[in-house]
Amino acid sequence: MRSILILGAGRSASSLIQYLIDHAREQQWRVTVADKDADHARKLTGTANDAAEGIALDATDADARAMLIAKHDLVISMLPAFMHMDVLKDCLRLRKHVITPSYVPDALWALDAEFKQAGLIVLNEMGLDPGIDHMSAMRILDRIRAMGGTMEAFESYCGGLVAPESDDNLWGYKFSWNPRNVILAGAGGSAKYIENGITKYIPYHKLFQRTSRIDVPGFGAFDGYANRDSLKYRSHYGIDGIPTMKRGTLRKGGFCTAWDCFVQLGCTDDGFIMELGTDATWNDYIHAFLPSVADRDARAGLAHYLGLEPEGTVMKMLDELRIFSNERIGRTGLSPAGLLQHLLEQRWVLGPEDKDLVVMWHRFSYSHEGTSHEIHASLVVVGQDQVHTAMARTVGLPIAMACKLVFNNGINDRGVLLPLKPGIYLPVLDELERIGVVFHER
Amino acid sequence: MRSILILGAGRSASSLIQYLIDHAREQQWRVTVADKDADHARKLTGTANDAAEGIALDATDADARAMLIAKHDLVISMLPAFMHMDVLKDCLRLRKHVITPSYVPDALWALDAEFKQAGLIVLNEMGLDPGIDHMSAMRILDRIRAMGGTMEAFESYCGGLVAPESDDNLWGYKFSWNPRNVILAGAGGSAKYIENGITKYIPYHKLFQRTSRIDVPGFGAFDGYANRDSLKYRSHYGIDGIPTMKRGTLRKGGFCTAWDCFVQLGCTDDGFIMELGTDATWNDYIHAFLPSVADRDARAGLAHYLGLEPEGTVMKMLDELRIFSNERIGRTGLSPAGLLQHLLEQRWVLGPEDKDLVVMWHRFSYSHEGTSHEIHASLVVVGQDQVHTAMARTVGLPIAMACKLVFNNGINDRGVLLPLKPGIYLPVLDELERIGVVFHER
Repeated sequence: MRSILILGAGRSASSLIQYLIDHAREQQWRVTVADKDADHARKLTGTANDAAEGIALDATDADARAMLIAKHDLVISMLPAFMHMDVLKDCLRLRKHVITPSYVPDALWALDAEFKQAGLIVLNEMGLDPGIDHMSAMRILDRIRAMGGTMEAFESYCGGLVAPESDDNLWGYKFSWNPRNVILAGAGGSAKYIENGITKYIPYHKLFQRTSRIDVPGFGAFDGYANRDSLKYRSHYGIDGIPTMKRGTLRKGGFCTAWDCFVQLGCTDDGFIMELGTDATWNDYIHAFLPSVADRDARAGLAHYLGLEPEGTVMKMLDELRIFSNERIGRTGLSPAGLLQHLLEQRWVLGPEDKDLVVMWHRFSYSHEGTSHEIHASLVVVGQDQVHTAMARTVGLPIAMACKLVFNNGINDRGVLLPLKPGIYLPVLDELERIGVVFHER
Repeated sequence: MRSILILGAGRSASSLIQYLIDHAREQQWRVTVADKDADHARKLTGTANDAAEGIALDATDADARAMLIAKHDLVISMLPAFMHMDVLKDCLRLRKHVITPSYVPDALWALDAEFKQAGLIVLNEMGLDPGIDHMSAMRILDRIRAMGGTMEAFESYCGGLVAPESDDNLWGYKFSWNPRNVILAGAGGSAKYIENGITKYIPYHKLFQRTSRIDVPGFGAFDGYANRDSLKYRSHYGIDGIPTMKRGTLRKGGFCTAWDCFVQLGCTDDGFIMELGTDATWNDYIHAFLPSVADRDARAGLAHYLGLEPEGTVMKMLDELRIFSNERIGRTGLSPAGLLQHLLEQRWVLGPEDKDLVVMWHRFSYSHEGTSHEIHASLVVVGQDQVHTAMARTVGLPIAMACKLVFNNGINDRGVLLPLKPGIYLPVLDELERIGVVFHER
């Protein structure tokens, strides 16, 4: 038997677990799902099969975590980013392969040689974004390279959204993954990209103002905002000299302009606990970020402060959240971002009948034999239901498919890996296509 | 003999060292000044006296630092904030009193009991701001309390500026202390204050827009921007229930509006190294923060991006810095903030004949027997010369005077202290008045 340990059974783990169970007999897999909530883990593994077991684990308990890792052959870490290095160090020490959908922490590269020497695979960025974005980009980039083309521009955008048939709020948004990551998106520092040979930096407070309009055939207009550090992917993708390269995140058209209000106010700050009374209202919450104290009408104060049309679209979007209401917040001891998350988790609920949507869009510009060419590739995935969301499927299934590669000796490289080589991306993209996760090229 | 160790001989250490030398015989002091640059330390101690010695020390070398601390009776740390906790822990371990002009790091309070038990004084925030601000505020607050008044509002602003006779640039600014602190001022997180009973938060990107106009009699109009966390000083000052409390920093009128351009662009980000060629110009530097790449004219691009009048005051202030010029930067491997500092250190030089200026301004509103009263207290200090600047004198002399108190058993409290009690603030403010550092009340 080949034993697999999944650490963390959050929103993105459902389809991963289902795939592993479905292929357990054929692949001789034995799966353990460890989550802080054992009941939730057991709900995902089911009780009717003996291929998978759900158990309780406090992943911050280093001893318990190591003991569990030691008992398995391969680890899949779905834990939040701050736990990532601890788990990877465990895997190095205990000699286990590991697959994660998380970004490679810079500190991980320093351990690359040790992982290699131990003959271990640390396959990172193996979900959707990062993950499918890398694989689908590399497949086309390698094709352009093979025909002798020269890359002139590469842009890549991805978003987890709500399917058109379930889109019933003004923001065009419901949470299909970790809400905290949505609230704090971009807050980690300036975004970096390159355009026409000039390296560009966007500070967080300008990020949602400097968006690009992205049209996806059949699905309408989206706002794209720049995502973290696009520059480092130039070398990963083997296009170091490319004059234009930008990676970004998609939201429905109009979302970013309205979200920027929260950024401008300071509502997405996660750095301090707000001093608000136990009976404070959402109106009080907004007031805390406004300069004027002349009247208690936070709505008018905000419109004036940010220069918004009082009956315009953005104010109507804020009204829909009831953020100017006298409803009590009902929580204390949280940061501005924590309180905003508390509000939005009540407003942007993916309901039992709702379906989510994943959209990815690439643009490749290249020259070949003196003429310029452009390829647009887009992927649209609609969720199956509230559990097997498009997000859970596109994040989890590539990881599950990579498990198959690891156990069946399909990956020759060792050390810190990204899914950038045909040996990984071809079988995974092919299998994704067979289950309907298909890119369309123009 | 009583031996004093000064760690760090930066711009603010000159008058401190001079005072300690001047009083060495009378106070039986022996002073060691340890700096990474031994020549600079020796320049400040002089060679003609045997009361003081300048030596070389890499303060990050924990062993060398501890060995030196062990040899002295009292430590004055003028090192940057990031070194602060290390030095204080050394002093606890080696049983030494310590005085610093730095803010109390939150982590220090956890060591309070240990310092108390060891009978040690850790006197913090003993410079100008923090320092003289606390002392002068407490003297008036204690007076209002003694007469039975109730505090309704307290505002306190301070700035290190350039004297009117040396004010010959459009910004009204030259560096009289650590330029890095000026560039990064406010970047540590949202500023916090309370106004009319509502706690207010200002994110960094709004800090230089939400200024107050402060008029100091005889010295004109200043911009005041909110300084860090004003809330925590409510309890330090014993005015927990006060509905309005705000501490801030002063710049000459107009400075903040122009400085905000750098904040909006992202030029004050210290979080990443900019990717600029070795022959990059200041025009290229600005271009990196602008969205448009259509033309190479960064000046027009910036005015358009930030909505500035092309021939208005702010653009003229930026022009004066030659930040749109094709002059080569001549430095690489720095953050946006590091490069901006490199530019401004060439432009805002306090010349040999220049004098600096320190301005402090308090406003106290209180009610007493049914009527409201207001006290404005202001301090203006002009520097003596380029070495004994107003900044060096107002930061350094209170520390030196506190040395006298410590050695002559003038301070009864032990543990982590701020200069908030009459036992400290009265003798220090009195001695400051005798040398011309005088508050004027209205």
